[in-house]
Amino acid sequence: MAAPAGEAHGTQLLLELFVMLGGAKLLAEIFAWLRQPTVVGEILAGVLIGPQVLHLVAPSETSHVLAELGVIFLLFNVGLETKPSSIFKVGRMALLVAVLGVVVPMACGYLLMMAWDGNKIEALFIGTAMVATSVGITARVLADMGLLDSTAARIILGAAVIDDILGLLVLAAVASAAKGSVNIAEIATTALLALGFVAAITFLGAPALTRAAPHFRRLRAGNESFVIAILLCFGLALAGTYIGVAAIIGAFLAGMALAEAVESNHDVHQQVRGATEFLVPFFLVNIGMQLDLSVFTNRQSLLLALVMTLVAVLTKLVGCGLGAWGLGLRGAAQVGVGMVPRGEVGIVVAQIGLGVGVITESLFGAVLFMACATTLIAPPLIRPLFASQKT
Amino acid sequence: MAAPAGEAHGTQLLLELFVMLGGAKLLAEIFAWLRQPTVVGEILAGVLIGPQVLHLVAPSETSHVLAELGVIFLLFNVGLETKPSSIFKVGRMALLVAVLGVVVPMACGYLLMMAWDGNKIEALFIGTAMVATSVGITARVLADMGLLDSTAARIILGAAVIDDILGLLVLAAVASAAKGSVNIAEIATTALLALGFVAAITFLGAPALTRAAPHFRRLRAGNESFVIAILLCFGLALAGTYIGVAAIIGAFLAGMALAEAVESNHDVHQQVRGATEFLVPFFLVNIGMQLDLSVFTNRQSLLLALVMTLVAVLTKLVGCGLGAWGLGLRGAAQVGVGMVPRGEVGIVVAQIGLGVGVITESLFGAVLFMACATTLIAPPLIRPLFASQKT
Repeated sequence: MAAPAGEAHGTQLLLELFVMLGGAKLLAEIFAWLRQPTVVGEILAGVLIGPQVLHLVAPSETSHVLAELGVIFLLFNVGLETKPSSIFKVGRMALLVAVLGVVVPMACGYLLMMAWDGNKIEALFIGTAMVATSVGITARVLADMGLLDSTAARIILGAAVIDDILGLLVLAAVASAAKGSVNIAEIATTALLALGFVAAITFLGAPALTRAAPHFRRLRAGNESFVIAILLCFGLALAGTYIGVAAIIGAFLAGMALAEAVESNHDVHQQVRGATEFLVPFFLVNIGMQLDLSVFTNRQSLLLALVMTLVAVLTKLVGCGLGAWGLGLRGAAQVGVGMVPRGEVGIVVAQIGLGVGVITESLFGAVLFMACATTLIAPPLIRPLFASQKT
Repeated sequence: MAAPAGEAHGTQLLLELFVMLGGAKLLAEIFAWLRQPTVVGEILAGVLIGPQVLHLVAPSETSHVLAELGVIFLLFNVGLETKPSSIFKVGRMALLVAVLGVVVPMACGYLLMMAWDGNKIEALFIGTAMVATSVGITARVLADMGLLDSTAARIILGAAVIDDILGLLVLAAVASAAKGSVNIAEIATTALLALGFVAAITFLGAPALTRAAPHFRRLRAGNESFVIAILLCFGLALAGTYIGVAAIIGAFLAGMALAEAVESNHDVHQQVRGATEFLVPFFLVNIGMQLDLSVFTNRQSLLLALVMTLVAVLTKLVGCGLGAWGLGLRGAAQVGVGMVPRGEVGIVVAQIGLGVGVITESLFGAVLFMACATTLIAPPLIRPLFASQKT
């Protein structure tokens, strides 16, 4: 019997999910066997099954939603392993890492584009697109290695939160500059809101939740701790996006605020881990599926993408490395490499530039390539730099 | 700063997810406090936030995907708690329950429509739409009560698998009758494939997995048991849909085949439970959101929907109850009520009828109403019937 119309859709969905999950896990297993980072295998699985090679699955509404859920759960899970106090201890250095990690890439990205074609507004947008670190990949690699509580990991996580806020402010400034006038009051409001959001969760939310946790069990509708945890995760991710902070930063802060409250609750940790492990492969595969080499119609544009990627890697390495110089050469290199991956925020910045006509299609392709490439380059560098700490 | 274009979409997504999850859990908590089944609260949350009342969220591609994932994980989770041997013990009675639970609703649905307007093909389709039990809701209620291993629960689960296959065969026969010729060879092939699928998983797959489980740990890419479990779940759900069996039956069989293999692995159970608890609310809310009262433009069509619902409830109660008569009156009532909920399969049957022009829009609305109503009616009846067993 032919599948009925309503079920054919369900079959297609299940097939896509199975190919994405199975492909990701197959390549993860091969990479683990080769002693390479499994995240790289999962991203390459996306390149393989996606429009670049096998055309099995194309990025869709569904893959985007699952990818978004995946990275939100990933950062929430990392937050659950991160007590606020462990970030406070490295707060000053994380601030320095974040500031230098914003200034150096921004300045060098700007200079690169000024040297390339001298368009000032375009150069400002590209500089901004090179600012925001996407901490998901690094967090995943360090979590896989069991090193989330190392000093370098805590600095990276703290710096990623600050980096996101700084990136938000730079974008607000550049976007208003593109319109012709910089609205200082609006930027100051954005800054205060974002800082207030982070401070409120960290200093008020976390202690309040730790005190409230024993009362969670008064709720009746079964499995109350897990339900409250994920509602808080999605609530703060949502609140973050209203303020302008990335959803994953809200999810990370939610996890961190809950870290002490659920510290001894093994089942909640395993339940969050289950949802995370199921959803994260979609996040990684989706990165790979978005890689699009067809925009590089001439040698010139490919060259720009490669140079932009090189600048993106070196500027975070040097900028963040300088900020973490107090840890010694190895520690500085760990932090620098951990901050290299760029992600959706850079792509969003380039999209805004594309929308207002400042950025061309081929330049947008270069930013997309840079985001993909920095994500793929980082894990093979992170592993050996952190490896000997494992003992 | 206004939210940039790319992020506005993300904010909308997070808002919808938060409203669905939060609404479901709020009403679940209220219903738990009123000592009513929480699933009813979560479905009513869908009615409330959906197009019928508050218009906060409409059914979308995203809500459908998450709902589908939710019910797949739900049945997989139930399968994990169900050893094949526990079903074998009640196999003969489950078969009788399934057969009578197909024949009685089919016959009475046919007679109802013949009495209503005398259209024979239409009557065959409506009879078929009243056949397939959707076991998700009952499984959830019994799992919440900790009663999945009761005799009645095992009969319901076994009967649901057989019921699904019988429904598939009835649909194949009716659909080919609508085209004018019944292809016996095709129906026999469908039957053999479906039975072979269930038998292969139960008699070959389950023992093989139980033997293979200790070797899972040779895999390198972390958390191997959970990854293999969900790949198997999606693989068999997918294979099921190719054969014509519902995806949730494939997921249930995958869970059952793994039940002994992961019996002592507490973490895998908690991880599957985490993904399930996150996704199931979308399944329940989505049922509620699909309720559409606007098709009932006249008293006549509303009356038909109500009579059809009454017939749907009584025929499963009597048919399945007769099949489980050996358990005594109370046991028979437990099984009968547990088989009452209809779901997506009945809707798909009506959709096919709509597609070939046999079923009118308002008759389709009546089937949709019947599926929703039987789902809402069952839990408040299941709870008291099973309640005293808990002690």
